[in-house]
Amino acid sequence: MAIPELQRRLREFVAERDWRQYQNPKNLVMALTGEVGELTEIFQWLTSDQSASVMSDSQRAEHVRDEIADVLAYLLRLCDVLGIDPEAALAEKITKNAAKYPVPTATSP
Amino acid sequence: MAIPELQRRLREFVAERDWRQYQNPKNLVMALTGEVGELTEIFQWLTSDQSASVMSDSQRAEHVRDEIADVLAYLLRLCDVLGIDPEAALAEKITKNAAKYPVPTATSP
Amino acid sequence: MAIPELQRRLREFVAERDWRQYQNPKNLVMALTGEVGELTEIFQWLTSDQSASVMSDSQRAEHVRDEIADVLAYLLRLCDVLGIDPEAALAEKITKNAAKYPVPTATSP
Amino acid sequence: MAIPELQRRLREFVAERDWRQYQNPKNLVMALTGEVGELTEIFQWLTSDQSASVMSDSQRAEHVRDEIADVLAYLLRLCDVLGIDPEAALAEKITKNAAKYPVPTATSP
Repeated sequence: MAIPELQRRLREFVAERDWRQYQNPKNLVMALTGEVGELTEIFQWLTSDQSASVMSDSQRAEHVRDEIADVLAYLLRLCDVLGIDPEAALAEKITKNAAKYPVPTATSP
Repeated sequence: MAIPELQRRLREFVAERDWRQYQNPKNLVMALTGEVGELTEIFQWLTSDQSASVMSDSQRAEHVRDEIADVLAYLLRLCDVLGIDPEAALAEKITKNAAKYPVPTATSP
Repeated sequence: MAIPELQRRLREFVAERDWRQYQNPKNLVMALTGEVGELTEIFQWLTSDQSASVMSDSQRAEHVRDEIADVLAYLLRLCDVLGIDPEAALAEKITKNAAKYPVPTATSP
Repeated sequence: MAIPELQRRLREFVAERDWRQYQNPKNLVMALTGEVGELTEIFQWLTSDQSASVMSDSQRAEHVRDEIADVLAYLLRLCDVLGIDPEAALAEKITKNAAKYPVPTATSP
């Protein structure tokens, strides 16, 4: 399922529960913070190496997937209420960043 | 540009700059936090109403787009290094949430 | 109980449970993020006015107190492992900020 | 300078600049998030070992001190507007946590 379709489903989900009234941009940014906090709690006491193999435990893998999904959900809701196309915004940002951080070139011998 | 293509471009961007060594899941979760912090700073002193019209100022609109793009970038990088398909993860989470939060039905007269 | 005494008690708490090994600065910053996320979740769907009267409900008041205590705990632990005196750091920052943001003076008639 | 005195100075600082109107609890929680984000950015690409010696570089040490001071400032402002005594809240939380996480006792031989 692609991003526009996920956004449509999230929009319906919210409308059906009459939650649209709560989902102004300010509140959605806070909800995003809350979910990033939950994602952080999974990783906070792990070493970097442990974090790299976090998906090898199936229960923890599902937890990570769920929290990442929650972060993405609020990010997509935020984009929806602000009228931002997240994929276009990121494509443009990558172009900006490529100019800002040029690839180091090999020095000639 | 769709998510898998954005992930491919981000992966190349990181590889070309030899940044892959820094991008373990733990560090990427922290980078995500940093970007959500920057997004939050745009909204922190706005009222809810002001937050809803944040895109009407073109300079601030660009700032919001850029910060949302940065959040999405690190979220996609995190998914990439963990082997998670973000769109599939969210589609499954929406299904879970629909069961967890049933739509209130109208009571019959 | 003042800050240095709270820090001493937290230090003992951690030592008794053999948790010192996990409490490096990087991990403590993540733990701080997690707690700020939990605090945020209390406030995310409230209006500003509702947030101002959050302490009028005794159960929610206790929840807010507990989350604020958790944020402070990790902040004090972070200061402890880094050798930072939080009260001195803040006193100096207030002085810096007073120079950075001068008080607007009344214009003479 | 102790916490109550720091809170008094922060209260004056805010009043002199007519910023009190912006400092409702919801906004202060977001401001706290923003500052934790800035603190996180210092640590995100460091290894745990590097994070443990972050204070050995004097410029970075000052940066860490400043960001920690900012986090503490907003936490104290939040406590002030909510009427919470942060030191008492933490002392009580430590007592609760001591009951929740009992010290493991040595098993007899």
